[in-house]
Amino acid sequence: MKQIDVCFTPDLLHLHTIENTIVVVADVFRATSCMVTAFAYGVKSITPVATIDECRLLQERGYMAAAERNARKVEGFELDNSPFTYMNEQIRGADIAMTTTNGTLAITRSRGAVKVLVGSFLNLDAIANFLKTEPYDVMVLCAGWKGRVNLEDTLFAGALVDRLKDNYAMAEDSAIMAWRLYGQGKDNLIGYMSNASHIRRLQRLGIQKDITYCLQHDLYDVIPVLRGNALVGMEG
Amino acid sequence: MKQIDVCFTPDLLHLHTIENTIVVVADVFRATSCMVTAFAYGVKSITPVATIDECRLLQERGYMAAAERNARKVEGFELDNSPFTYMNEQIRGADIAMTTTNGTLAITRSRGAVKVLVGSFLNLDAIANFLKTEPYDVMVLCAGWKGRVNLEDTLFAGALVDRLKDNYAMAEDSAIMAWRLYGQGKDNLIGYMSNASHIRRLQRLGIQKDITYCLQHDLYDVIPVLRGNALVGMEG
Repeated sequence: MKQIDVCFTPDLLHLHTIENTIVVVADVFRATSCMVTAFAYGVKSITPVATIDECRLLQERGYMAAAERNARKVEGFELDNSPFTYMNEQIRGADIAMTTTNGTLAITRSRGAVKVLVGSFLNLDAIANFLKTEPYDVMVLCAGWKGRVNLEDTLFAGALVDRLKDNYAMAEDSAIMAWRLYGQGKDNLIGYMSNASHIRRLQRLGIQKDITYCLQHDLYDVIPVLRGNALVGMEG
Repeated sequence: MKQIDVCFTPDLLHLHTIENTIVVVADVFRATSCMVTAFAYGVKSITPVATIDECRLLQERGYMAAAERNARKVEGFELDNSPFTYMNEQIRGADIAMTTTNGTLAITRSRGAVKVLVGSFLNLDAIANFLKTEPYDVMVLCAGWKGRVNLEDTLFAGALVDRLKDNYAMAEDSAIMAWRLYGQGKDNLIGYMSNASHIRRLQRLGIQKDITYCLQHDLYDVIPVLRGNALVGMEG
């Protein structure tokens, strides 16, 4: 039976071998939810970069650009880190450069995997259905917060474990833990997360609307997948 | 309000500052449960060491010695890594040297904290009551399995968070996650952990009796605490 593993944070990636594995990166609030939304609205590519300087460089070459640090938009970039930014005719066909506190790093560190997919609750079912047709083991890489584990990405991992539990064995306790937490919280994810650190951080910034949006399941069929240095959209 | 934090594995210790914190180390199956049992049965000191060679050296100097790797006793040491080994008149007043796959390393890496305490379900209440009287923040360090998170140590962390929730705020999502998991599993911990990796590992070794024993709450009042290089017993 294929195995599904969960890595709670990029700071534990050294414990995992990903060469023969499909990695699903999740940064639910909000980077990967933005990416999925962007592809659903017709973006052509998203290039994740590590630094604000690299992002600016690509912007100068004609990319639309988004930069976020500590959950806030960085000055001088046209796109925000809110998914609502991407619900916009202007972005159809665009090449986007993006750097975020956690999510883009998690993607670039996953190079070396068989495939790197971008996951969120918004495309959960598309991801699950695609994986069922693949012969490889799966690892969900939670982006976390500056190396720390967080609840929302773990819950996404648990949701994917739940959708795949008839097709994949849980590799380690982290998969069991994520699955248990999702089972406990799934009927009221917002209430369940009410005391989580990033929820409080986002609420201080007044973006409850984004939280509600990012927790919706199965809104889009698109799966962003890494090709070379850029993500492109693949229909699930 | 004081804060309680949970570090899921020693491989995430670099994200935490412990200088002004009391660290509670947990390796429920079975190192810290053994240590608590040993002090309850009158051991004078336990010196945790990193390598089998160091353990042998102390043995040659007259220590009783225990060495475990991959959940198995290492040849040439008199004490096993089962708590039942320590329920024995022979160990009263003994100085013990011990090396284990995960637990002893977690202890030695916690040097630098205000205090390093050894926790298990067996002395949960003693630990909780002691901490309530202290002015410091607390971090539970789960020993995990070779850097990976595990369910049983996380559940212990959650149990301690639960006992302290009126006195300490949960510092980060890891504390919330541990607390949620304990709340979900506490009424039937053995059943709840039935598919966990280390439970399966231990069951293959035929030590169900140890598992049942290590999950008992509040059996002893003793708290092993690190003084210099050795643990000594402190009444809770």
